[in-house]
This record gives sequence, C-alpha cells and structure tokens, in this order.
Amino acid sequence: MPEIHANRREALRQLLEQAGVDALLVTDLLNIRYLTGFTGSNAALLLHTGDDERTVFCTDGRYFTQSAAEVPDLERIIDRASAVALLSRAAEHAATYRSTGFESHYVSVEDYEAFAALADGVELHRAPGLVEQLRLVKDEGEIASLRKACEAADRALAVLLERGGIRTGRTEREVARDLENLMLDHGSSGPSFDSIVAAGANSAIPHHRPTEYVLTAGDFVKLDFGATVEGYHSDMTRTLVLGRPADWQRDLYDLVARSQTAGRAAVTPGAGTKDVDKAARQVIDDAGRGEDFTHGLGHGVGLQIHEAPRLAKTGDGTLAAGMTVTVEPGVYLAGRGGVRIEDTLVVRDSAPELLTLSSKELVVV
Amino acid sequence: MPEIHANRREALRQLLEQAGVDALLVTDLLNIRYLTGFTGSNAALLLHTGDDERTVFCTDGRYFTQSAAEVPDLERIIDRASAVALLSRAAEHAATYRSTGFESHYVSVEDYEAFAALADGVELHRAPGLVEQLRLVKDEGEIASLRKACEAADRALAVLLERGGIRTGRTEREVARDLENLMLDHGSSGPSFDSIVAAGANSAIPHHRPTEYVLTAGDFVKLDFGATVEGYHSDMTRTLVLGRPADWQRDLYDLVARSQTAGRAAVTPGAGTKDVDKAARQVIDDAGRGEDFTHGLGHGVGLQIHEAPRLAKTGDGTLAAGMTVTVEPGVYLAGRGGVRIEDTLVVRDSAPELLTLSSKELVVV
Repeated sequence: MPEIHANRREALRQLLEQAGVDALLVTDLLNIRYLTGFTGSNAALLLHTGDDERTVFCTDGRYFTQSAAEVPDLERIIDRASAVALLSRAAEHAATYRSTGFESHYVSVEDYEAFAALADGVELHRAPGLVEQLRLVKDEGEIASLRKACEAADRALAVLLERGGIRTGRTEREVARDLENLMLDHGSSGPSFDSIVAAGANSAIPHHRPTEYVLTAGDFVKLDFGATVEGYHSDMTRTLVLGRPADWQRDLYDLVARSQTAGRAAVTPGAGTKDVDKAARQVIDDAGRGEDFTHGLGHGVGLQIHEAPRLAKTGDGTLAAGMTVTVEPGVYLAGRGGVRIEDTLVVRDSAPELLTLSSKELVVV
Repeated sequence: MPEIHANRREALRQLLEQAGVDALLVTDLLNIRYLTGFTGSNAALLLHTGDDERTVFCTDGRYFTQSAAEVPDLERIIDRASAVALLSRAAEHAATYRSTGFESHYVSVEDYEAFAALADGVELHRAPGLVEQLRLVKDEGEIASLRKACEAADRALAVLLERGGIRTGRTEREVARDLENLMLDHGSSGPSFDSIVAAGANSAIPHHRPTEYVLTAGDFVKLDFGATVEGYHSDMTRTLVLGRPADWQRDLYDLVARSQTAGRAAVTPGAGTKDVDKAARQVIDDAGRGEDFTHGLGHGVGLQIHEAPRLAKTGDGTLAAGMTVTVEPGVYLAGRGGVRIEDTLVVRDSAPELLTLSSKELVVV
C-alpha cells in the first residue's frame, strides 16, 4: 500500500513546515517503516519538506530486492552507511537541504558528531519526536493490524483453556510456551514482549518471569501476553483462579474489575491521561488498596509495545480519537497473590473500541 | 557471583584513569549487566574511578527485590529516572564526580542536553565504547555461558534430525518453530535472533525469513539459528541436502567447507581481522566464486548477537585470546541455492576452541 505511506509523509510535511526545516533525516527504523513500509534492519530516509521528488531512501545490498518491493515509490540509494550516504547527498545539494532536522531523541552524541562533520553547508537541527507525534493517532490500516494481533492472543487463550492447558501440575513456563506457540498458530510473528505467567504468590509480582513453579489448586494465575502481527503489538492480561476462589480472591478480583471498568469508561477523546488514570485509581484508593496498585494505568501500543501516550498519575497528555491504549489496573498483595486485568482499546468518538475480547469473568479453571 | 562483577569494575577503572575522568555514567543496559549482574529493563550506574564506595547503582521500584539480590555489593538508589537521579547525586557531590564520562555512543542528543542541564558543577565528557572494549575479551564465566548456549542449539538440531523433523513435506516455518522449541527444552531462554530456515532457491538468500515453502527432495536446507543462555548468544549455520545431493551441490558444499576450515585455522591471537576474512575468502575467490560470497566472514558474539570484532575485508582489528567470533562463509547462487557453514569459536593461544559441535558433514537427510 504505497499510498498510505505517501499520505503519512504528507502529514509529516506539515510538522516539518512548522519546524521550519527543509528536510528531516529519519534514522529510527520504526519511523522509517511507518513512513515507507520498509521492514529491514538498516535504512535511513531523507524526507524533503516540499515533496517526494526530493525525498531519498537508503538501505544496504542485503535488502536490494526487498526494498524495491516495499519502497517502490521513492528514489533509492544502496549503501551500508545509510545515514552517512544521505547526509552526503544533502551536502552535495546543500541549497535543497540547507536546514535539515534529525531525530535527536534517537541519534547518539557520537553519531551526531559524525553527521556534523559530514554535513558541509547543511545546518543540522534537533527535531525530536515528530514522527512519533503522528504515530500517536492510528489510521484504520494500523488499527486493522492491531485487531489481528489482539485476535491472535484471544484465540490462543481460548484454545489453551479449551484444551485444559491451564491446570494444576503444569509449570508457569509450560503455560507461557503454549500461549506463545498458539499465538504463532493464529498469525503472530512472535510474542510482543516477554510473556508473564505468574501463579500463586508469584502473581503478586507485577512483572514476574515464568519459572518452574507448579500451578497449585487455589492459585491465582496471572497471564500477561501479546502477539505481533504486521509489526503491531497486542497486550492483554487476564487473571484466573485454579479451582474454587476464596472470598479474598473474589473480593480482590471484583475490586480490580470495577477499577478496570471505570478506567475504560474514562477513555474518551479530550480526556486528560491523568484523569483516566485517576478514574480507575479512585476505585482502588476508595477500597484502601491504593498502595498496592504500584504502577501506571496504561500506555499506548502500536509499532512498539510501549509508546505514547502514558496513562499515569502525572503527565499532561490528552486522548484523541484513533489513539490505542491499554487499561491495566492491578492490586498486588505480597506473598499472597495479585490481580491485573488489561485490555487494548481504541479511543473512539463514541465508546472506546475493545480489541482484546477474551472474557473478563473470574474464570474458574 | 558479585566478585566477577567487582573484577570487571576494577578493569574498567584502568580505562577510566587513562581517559582522565573521575567517574563514568553507564546507561547501556548490557554494559550495566556486565558490570553489576543486573538483568532488569531500567537502570543506570555511576561508577567512580577510585572505588566501589563512591559507585552508585539506580533502578526503579519494580526491581526493588530483584536488584537487592543481583546487585548486593553497591549502594542502591530507587528512582524511575535512573540516569537523572545519578547525575543529581553527582551534582550534589561535585567535588567527587567533577569530571564524569558518559556513553556518548549510546546517549541520544536529547538525553545529553537534559544531562547537561542537570549536571551542575560536573563536567560531562564523551567516553564512547569503554565497557565494550572490556567486553571484547570474554572471561571464563562468559565462555561457560556461551558454551551452554551453543550446546542448546547443538542438541536441538540433533533431536530434530533424530526425529526426522527435517523432511520433504514440512514447511520452513515448521522447522524453525521446532528448532526454537527444542532449544527451549535444552536451556535456552529464547532464540538469539530470528531463526533462518531457507530451503531450495530460498537458501540462496543470505537472510531469508522462514515461509510456508514446503521442503522438496533435492533441496538445500540452510539452518541459521541460536540460543540465549544467561544472556549470552550462540550462532550456528548448517546446510543439509534432502535426499541425494547433485554434483553441483557436492561441489558447492565442498568449496564452502574448505573455506570455513581455512577461516577457522586463521583464528589465532594476533591475527588481523581482515586477514582471517581473507584466509577464508581466498579459497572461494580461487574457485571463481568470489562475487557470490556477499558478506563478511564473521562477527563477535556475547551479550549481543553481533558485537565487535567484525571479521571482514576492511577494518584494522586484531584478535586476542578470549575473544569469541563466528566464522561463516557462504556462497549463494541466485535461483538455485546457497550454502553457508558457521561456527562460534573462542580464540585460544593454541587452536581455537569450537563451541558449536554439530557435524559439518553434508548430512543427507
């Protein structure tokens, strides 16, 4: 779909005009993928503020064929030192690229020094986060990829439950591997982050890594996992109980579920990110468990598993339609167990669109 | 093993003295792992040139327990903004940290600007690649981890062959998944890079990604894969033939095998990296196939899958005992097929130590 990438480059041009630069040297590979469709591991893009005619893409010989297919609509240079090659081009045509921005949030101090030494007649300007600003709001193509990624995770969990794969006697590690393999069966190119399977007291550790711990009757089992489809990441947490839940487990689960519902309801265009966090946190605070909810409410998700916006106590962000965020409150009782419930959602003008559809009942396995 | 990390910090201090700085702010997480043993995803280290008494480690609240266990021997600050917290500490005690180096090959221009604004009374100096310089030569603890990673890959391949898992009718993707799962069975925490399984004409693509292509009698099957153990990566390529090899396949395989043997023989302390490359490349050049060997001979391997030194046509590096490198010549005939043979080796005073032990015969599956 070259058109979608051309449209994104046009949108970026408005930001470049505001920044007052003739061009932007893009070196972050995710930003290059977003702007061109290129999926290889070495590239740079010199995007001219005026048009695609003066925009040049560069990658190395390994990607000669792949880049011709993925980036058919831009002039292409083949050179291993991709950023350097494009800066040399800019210096050769200094009148065209006089004032060139670079991704100063990404480029290292050493690379910048090398760039500056090369860029004869070109003024280099710090231009951090411009493509990321566009990436905040997803287009429908991106949301379609995110939907597929969430679906792969939903299906994997459904199959695993149906097969009885989450039961006493199995280890956390076995459950994690099954989830990851089942996601591959359903279209994932790989886990979107290190899967968390945390049972019993381990469920009270927010970012526990799967161990040889054997699932035991009465355990909470917290599953936090995601799939990657077309470069986009899904993120979902469900917490189950093995066998009949104890009263404290029902109470804890109910509390987190109410908090998560309140958080999801607050996800609307124009809402402040800290107000969304507060809507969910208030429920837990009111129950006297505020100190056991030790992290932010959620984060943006897209080409990266964690990206802007951040839903947390602090921060001045505002939600807009088309942003995709997670809502994931958790309460952790050290030594006993914890509950987290997490969905991936699209901010919509009406109610938010839920992408992770697995049941949020306290499934009794 | 806190002692091993203390020893590495002592070795770094010699480099810091030569660089003339009072301290180094380490922000690359792999370098922090190397120097402290910490394996979490957020940390910084302010390493004083004098001693560990004035050295401070910082991570965030998620890693409170984990960091106490992994880094028992250093003063610890808990703060989400780890580098900023340590620079504030340095500024408070500016007499002690007057001249502080930072990892300018890793720190972005934006982060540097933020650091500089904070570091009141502290002079920040570019100090690129110092820890990487130490990491070039592996200690025996590191080599033990690399050995386990190579063993996991060897065993996975052996089991897969024994089970008849590489046969006509299976897809590249199925074979890749089996290899990855078998490596997990044998101690890997995950693949060390995206596995390559490339059959038939695909074997002529150096970095092919596994597809739904169905393995067919007479195909070359190129397998390039590795395991991760204790953070260390293995890297091995084997090329097989499904059924009876044709004459051109035997010839091609024999050529690459002779090149690889010559490359391994050249791996000795004091050898120039480009001379090692040349020893293997000459064999292929002499056979008139030089243009079909389209990449460098190998690379260092350790906490990263690709690290220094690079074995290639250009570059002024010299091998030293304790470095670990791959030797991986390949010849690729577009549209027909290709062969690559790759081992991971330790440079030793005597002959190099081979870590990947799988047979290099042209196994006829």
